[in-house]
Order: sequence, then C-alpha cells, then structure tokens
Amino acid sequence: MFTSSLCKAGEKMVLTRIGLAGLAVMGQNLALNIAEKGFPISVYNRTTSKVDETVERAKQEGDLPVYGFHDPAAFINSIQKPRVVIMLVKAGAPVDQTIQTLSAYMEKGDCIIDGGNEWYENTERREKAVTEQGLLYLGMGVSGGEEGARHGPSLMPGGSFEAYKYIEDILLKVAAQVPDSGPCVTYIGKGGSGNFVKMVHNGIEYGDMQLIAEAYDVLKSVGKLSNDELQQVFSEWNKGELLSFLIEITADIFGIKDDKGDGYLVDKVLDKTGMKGTGKWTVQQAADLSVAAPTIAASLDSRFLSGLKEERVEAAKVFKAGGFSDILGNQSVDKAKLIDDVRQALYASKICSYAQGMNLIRAKSTEKGWGLKLGELARIWKGGCIIRAIFLDRIKQAYDRNSDLANLLVDPEFAKEILDRQAAWRRVICLAINSGVSTPGMSTSLAYFDTYRRERLPANLVQAQRDYFGAHTYERVDMPGSFHTEWFKIAQQSKM
Amino acid sequence: MFTSSLCKAGEKMVLTRIGLAGLAVMGQNLALNIAEKGFPISVYNRTTSKVDETVERAKQEGDLPVYGFHDPAAFINSIQKPRVVIMLVKAGAPVDQTIQTLSAYMEKGDCIIDGGNEWYENTERREKAVTEQGLLYLGMGVSGGEEGARHGPSLMPGGSFEAYKYIEDILLKVAAQVPDSGPCVTYIGKGGSGNFVKMVHNGIEYGDMQLIAEAYDVLKSVGKLSNDELQQVFSEWNKGELLSFLIEITADIFGIKDDKGDGYLVDKVLDKTGMKGTGKWTVQQAADLSVAAPTIAASLDSRFLSGLKEERVEAAKVFKAGGFSDILGNQSVDKAKLIDDVRQALYASKICSYAQGMNLIRAKSTEKGWGLKLGELARIWKGGCIIRAIFLDRIKQAYDRNSDLANLLVDPEFAKEILDRQAAWRRVICLAINSGVSTPGMSTSLAYFDTYRRERLPANLVQAQRDYFGAHTYERVDMPGSFHTEWFKIAQQSKM
Repeated sequence: MFTSSLCKAGEKMVLTRIGLAGLAVMGQNLALNIAEKGFPISVYNRTTSKVDETVERAKQEGDLPVYGFHDPAAFINSIQKPRVVIMLVKAGAPVDQTIQTLSAYMEKGDCIIDGGNEWYENTERREKAVTEQGLLYLGMGVSGGEEGARHGPSLMPGGSFEAYKYIEDILLKVAAQVPDSGPCVTYIGKGGSGNFVKMVHNGIEYGDMQLIAEAYDVLKSVGKLSNDELQQVFSEWNKGELLSFLIEITADIFGIKDDKGDGYLVDKVLDKTGMKGTGKWTVQQAADLSVAAPTIAASLDSRFLSGLKEERVEAAKVFKAGGFSDILGNQSVDKAKLIDDVRQALYASKICSYAQGMNLIRAKSTEKGWGLKLGELARIWKGGCIIRAIFLDRIKQAYDRNSDLANLLVDPEFAKEILDRQAAWRRVICLAINSGVSTPGMSTSLAYFDTYRRERLPANLVQAQRDYFGAHTYERVDMPGSFHTEWFKIAQQSKM
Repeated sequence: MFTSSLCKAGEKMVLTRIGLAGLAVMGQNLALNIAEKGFPISVYNRTTSKVDETVERAKQEGDLPVYGFHDPAAFINSIQKPRVVIMLVKAGAPVDQTIQTLSAYMEKGDCIIDGGNEWYENTERREKAVTEQGLLYLGMGVSGGEEGARHGPSLMPGGSFEAYKYIEDILLKVAAQVPDSGPCVTYIGKGGSGNFVKMVHNGIEYGDMQLIAEAYDVLKSVGKLSNDELQQVFSEWNKGELLSFLIEITADIFGIKDDKGDGYLVDKVLDKTGMKGTGKWTVQQAADLSVAAPTIAASLDSRFLSGLKEERVEAAKVFKAGGFSDILGNQSVDKAKLIDDVRQALYASKICSYAQGMNLIRAKSTEKGWGLKLGELARIWKGGCIIRAIFLDRIKQAYDRNSDLANLLVDPEFAKEILDRQAAWRRVICLAINSGVSTPGMSTSLAYFDTYRRERLPANLVQAQRDYFGAHTYERVDMPGSFHTEWFKIAQQSKM
C-alpha cells in the first residue's frame, strides 16, 4: 500500500533518498526535518496510523516530500540504492525486530542506522550480524528532543564510515547549525562509539539538571527567592557564562502559571524525577573504566531518592518529631550576594561534571581504540542538543590548546575560572550544609576538585590498612618497589 | 601421591570429613582452622609445593589432621561421602577449571563450595551446571583476611540448603564466635546470595576505610595532630561507639616506625589505593537496582583518584602557580573539640553508609526472591570479618525492632544518634571545605541524610525540565494523574 503527501495514486514514483522507520515523536520530527532540508524520504511504522499521521503533518507543514508506506517491502523498494534506513524505535528488542523486518528486503551495500538511545554493545553486536548479510550499520545518537529532531539536532553517528559517507550530505544539513563552528554532526568513530558518546552526553545532562536544581533549592529555600525572582535570576544568568538551553528553559519554567489552580505550575509538580537508563549506564561504565564521575553519580542518586517520596515524607516526620526542621536555623543572607555566589558555584561545579564526562569518553576510546576527538565532540554539542551551551566552546578551545589535556580542571583557562570562583563555591556549599539543604552535585564536584588537585591524599592510610589485614602490599614515597609489613606482629610486640 | 602430616606411608587411611582445594593464603589458613576444630581435612593444590607447605604448617601448628594430595583423584577419594570440597582459588576462570578438575572424580550428592569473592551470577551459572551432574553447590563469602580464615572468619554460604546442612556443624565451629550472639555464620539464601552479601560487605568495608581516612586527613591536615596523637585518638575511639577492627588496626598503624628510615611508616606509604573488584560491582549493582549508595561510590572514586598520583602532582603545581595552597587559610582549631567533632561526623556518616548497603541487599533480595534477613546479616558480621564492630549490634537491634525498617536512618535509636551528632557533622565538613580538604565520604553521607529526610526536594524542577524538552510528563502534588504541559508554547506566548 502506498500513501504519499505528494504523489497521486497510479503516478510513477521517483525513488526517495532515504527511509525512516519508527514514527513516534522523535521519528516523525526527524523525518519532517530531513524532508524539509530537500531530501525526499520514505517513512514506515508498524502501527500504520502513525504513517498517515506523519504524511498528514508533512502536508500541513509545507507539502514536504514525505512518502508513507504501510508495507515494509514497498517501503524499502521506494528508496534509491544503496538504501539507507534510519530506525527510531525503542532500544532493545524492538530494534532487533525492526532490523529483521527491514533487512529481509535489503541488499548488499544497503545501510541501517539506529537513531535511538541504544546500549553501545547492542549496536556492536548488530553491526557484526548485519555485516554478515553484507549490510552496513551505524549507531547514531540523536539529541535535542522533539524540537531538536524537527529543526536541527546534534547527531553522533558511529559505526561504518562508508555508511556515514553515503548520507553525510543529509546529516550536515539536518543537524543544528552553529555560526562559526558548523553543523552539529561529525563521524564519531567505529563500532558503538556514537551510542557511547550519546550515553555520556545524557549523563552530563543529568549532571547539569541536578546542579541547576540545587541552585534553585538554595536560592528558594535559603535565599527565599520567589518564582518571579528565580525567573529573573535565570534569565540574567542566561546572558553570561551559563548561557545554555537548560538555563533558558529553567527561566521559562518559573514564569508559567498553574492552569489548574492558583500560583505557579512548578510548585505543583511532584518532586519525583523519572529516568530512562542512560544515566545509569554512564555511572556503571565509569566504575568499569576506573573513572571517577561523582557529579553524574550524584545526579542519578538524587533521582533515585526523589522517587522515594513516601519514605521521605515519613522520614521528615521522624526527624521533625526529634526537633529537626526542614530548613535549619535562620541563616541571614544578602540576596544579591547569594545569587552571585550560587552562579559561581554552579559554573565551577559544571566544569567538574564535564571533566568527568570527557575523561570517561577518553577512557573508553582508549580501551576500544576508537580514537575519539574530545574537542570535536564539544563542538557538535554546541547546538541542537539538550546540553547546548556557550560553555562548550570553552571546552572545545581547551582541547584545541592541548588535545592531550589530562583533565579539564588543569586547562589554564578553566583553572583560572575555578580559582576565581572557589571562595563563592565553598560559601554556597557550607551555607547549604548549615541550612540542611543537600547539594550533592555541587559538594561532590568540589570534593572532586579538592581531591584531584591534591598531591597527597590520605589514601596511604587505606593502603596501609589493606596491607595490614590482607597483605595487599604498598608502594613507598621514597623508593621504588612493592612492600609488605607485618603490621599486626609489630604492633603486638610494641604492646608487650 | 599421598603426603600427610599424620599418616605414615602404607598406613590405611581413614576418610577425611572435608576437602579444600586452592592453598594460597586464605586456603591454607582456612584448612588449618577446620583441622584445628577437629575435622580431618584433605587438601589439594595444582602447584604441589603449596600442598607440602600446608602439611608442614599443620605439623608445626600442633599436628593438625591435614592430609595433603598431589593428585586430584586421590584427593577426592580420601573424603567421606557425600564429599564436600571448598575451593579457594581466584575468581573467574580458575574456579571453572577447578570445578572441571574435581568434578570428574565426584559422584551424585557430592558438593562443591566456592569460598572466593566471586560475582554472584557466576555462582548461579555454575550451580546450574553442576546440578545437571547431580552435584550440589554453594557460593560462600569468607571475610576476615588471613587472620580471620585461620582463627575464625565470618562465613556467608548461599546456594543449596542441603549442602549447607552437610557441613553446618563444621561451619558453626570454624566461624568466629561472638559471645551472646553465636557463631558468625548462617545460611544466607538461595543462588548467589552468599556472594552478593559478601560483595556488599566489601562495599561497606570500602566506605568504612574511606571515612576513617577522611577523619585522619582532617585531624592531621587541619588539626595538625601528630602520629602519636592520632594513635591515641583512635585507641580512645576504639573504646566507645566506634569500637571496631578497622579503628583498632588504624591505631596500630599510627604507632609503627619506619624500618627503612626515620619517622613513621604510614608517612612513607604511597597514597595510592588498590582494589580488586567487589567495590566496583557494589556500585554497579546499586545503579542497577535504583538504590542510592553514594558513600560507597565516593570510596570507590577516591580509590580511582588516588591512583592518578602523577596527574595529581601536576594538578597541584598548576593550582599552586595560581596562588592556591594545599591546605587553605589558617583555620584556628580547638584540638579537643575537633577530635570530638570528627568522631561524631565519622559515626553519623557510618550510619548512612550501612543504611545504603543494607538497602542494596534488600533490593536485590526482593528482586531475586531470596528472602534475606538483614538483622541476621548484621549478626554474622559482628565477628571475624573486616567490618566487625560493636556498631553492628545496633544494626541488628534496629532490624529486631522492625524487620521492615525502610532505612536505618529512621530507626528511632539511629535517628536520635544522628540528631545528637548532626551539628558536629556539619561543622567538620564545613571546616574541611574551608580548608580545601576533601571529605567525599562524609559530605556525601550528609547529603544522603539531608536528601532522604526531606519531604520536598527540588526534583520538581528536574521533572518539569524533562517534560519541557522531552514530553516525559509529570505528576502533581495536589491531584492524581499524569500531566504534560506545552511549556515552550506557553513561554513563547507570554514573551509576545
């Protein structure tokens, strides 16, 4: 069956340039985006009403060249060779099913692209499998939500370079365009690197959102700022170093009134945060690769604890009965100074969070031999995606200055920015601690900084303990080699 | 080939009660322990010199009934039926190899026990495999290091209950004995539960060691305590609520002089901490089960960052050049007050760390249907193992009072202890922050407490952001249901 927004029934059809399967929110919008950029596109969905819906939208949004199919064979046959199909279906089993359905009609040299948030190892498994059928495969991270997909996302394609080259012209036009730094897409690397990079992008996004939530909490709970004031503060912040999509939408959120009652909508939203898996994977990968990513981990833990709403209500009662208030004491604060301090704390914490994410990507790249370029990743995140921010340009510059930079913290520019902000950063966290307001993202970021920049840590004691009870040996500061001491015996002797 | 510490060549041998394969440090000591408790034991090791070494030790340590074998068939045949063999070999492939070697000579009803730190899923896989051969299987966590294995470890056997019953009499005698609460062993539960519980035990151990290291750092770096003073402080602490193996050995460590130079050995130990995998698994499992375990995660991250010694040395230079000292400012401190505050901060943080570990075990138990009893686990950790402490008795009591306790923090006794200590806890962390001394374990513990006990978190903002850019919907505080708002459109309208 053939339905189209352009061709009439019986009309001879010209082959389209590309296909897209999976027409939920992201798929529909990406298809319309591709069509709008001048590439005729075939679309398919198992539930056929979605196909008709997409075709209808294509008509309404300017007679875009979107061709809908209810039948997978006709869908595949409508695409010019070598055929390229982007899938936007739920990660996991649905991806396998879609590959099975579509690949049955594909030929050697055709290419399948998974645009979902897939676990990178699944992509590598599938690339291997379809390669045996002579097909090419890409796992492509797509960030930017609904709006990004429709008007210009950040794209992170990884896998077959040959397949990337087939559609590079499309991706360069479909991706977000950032003045002076180009389209937000680049060939990431082999295998599952596109998915991995997108996963870490999401982990960083968790971190950003958590840090913003903490800034909000301190300003609201300790600084007693109203939603109007918060909207002003975030709008102001969005003109400076914090300029970013997430700060912008946060300002918007504070301005929106509740349509179901009095007051502001944000105050009516339940304090329970959902999640979909990429944050968890990021934290697990960090542990696997021996990379400290405490800011991202704190964001994930905060989501977990937010979910325990009923337990928290009970716990609050227990401690209230013990004479404990929600917000401790009466901290007298200078609002203007607090706002300025919180801005600095947020910025400094953000540096730590990105440092962790970037080092996680590098560790994986080294392990897998992907050869990823961190500065280029910062560049393609500058537009289109959820973490887009002026800040990413500073990261790009840091890696331009030194592509082997061990950690963003020691880039001269970032180091200076942190030094300028560290007093405010410490003030905000201590104020929060003394107010009983938890700032796990900010405080764990500061601890990361204060750990990383310290030549000597108390880890000597931990290693001495390990050698004491487990004979795990230790190194010395003053001579090479591995040493073991009979701590217990010596201690016993000295007690006699 | 048959060598024995008791039998002469040619003498007719009486069958032994049990066998042990794998005679590295832990295996040797556990074998001697079993023999000493009156159970004749056969021992085997692939590298045969270890067998002779063990037999020799058995002679020297009191003519213990240890029978050594260089041949696996003779080893297995020397054990009474149904035969039980404990393996103490390196986790992973060596366990599979040992099972293959030994099971070739075993019969239906015989039992294999893995006493190593094995990943619980490997145990479940092996249990399934040997069950098909008619063999029984146990994965048994063994904690206590060398000393524990020799004189009384904490034992966490999980898997076949029938197999546990075969050797319960041995385990009850071999385990550490704690007055008023019995031997430190219990049947944990089915499948890999014994390994899982041991893994979390190790995660908690990471947390304890990190918290102690931070206490040391604050007292030494900010309080300027000498090693002699530190030894006194920890010895004093070991008489009170912190009484534990780890506090005791920490006091010992501060007293030991360097045998290769001047001063104290602890100051010569390189500040790099090693690790072997169980902490990593604990953190990954916490993420998998949506359980916040930030104190344990902070301990793991601290080990990772300790390993970057060279990078830290360079980073310290960068920030020193920027005018930053290792320890900030000149905090004037009252030593006695600081010591008292740090003790309280350590204790309160410890409660949070154990709360996380216990909830992780419960979450897994629920997922797997293991039916684990948290109070009973606290009981068997009271002796023998590395985390043994008077504190575990308080945990046992908390679960005795309420086996469904949602979190240790809300047990009335622990809640009161935290309330009594929270002012000191906050003082210590703020002092550390203002001194540039990172206390990731303590501060993340406090953030855990301040998050868990708060009815309303800023998670409403994060969920509003998710609904804004991803249409993820939200719940409301004042009515049931799932809601979505067109935040962007409304914000645009209000801007016009």
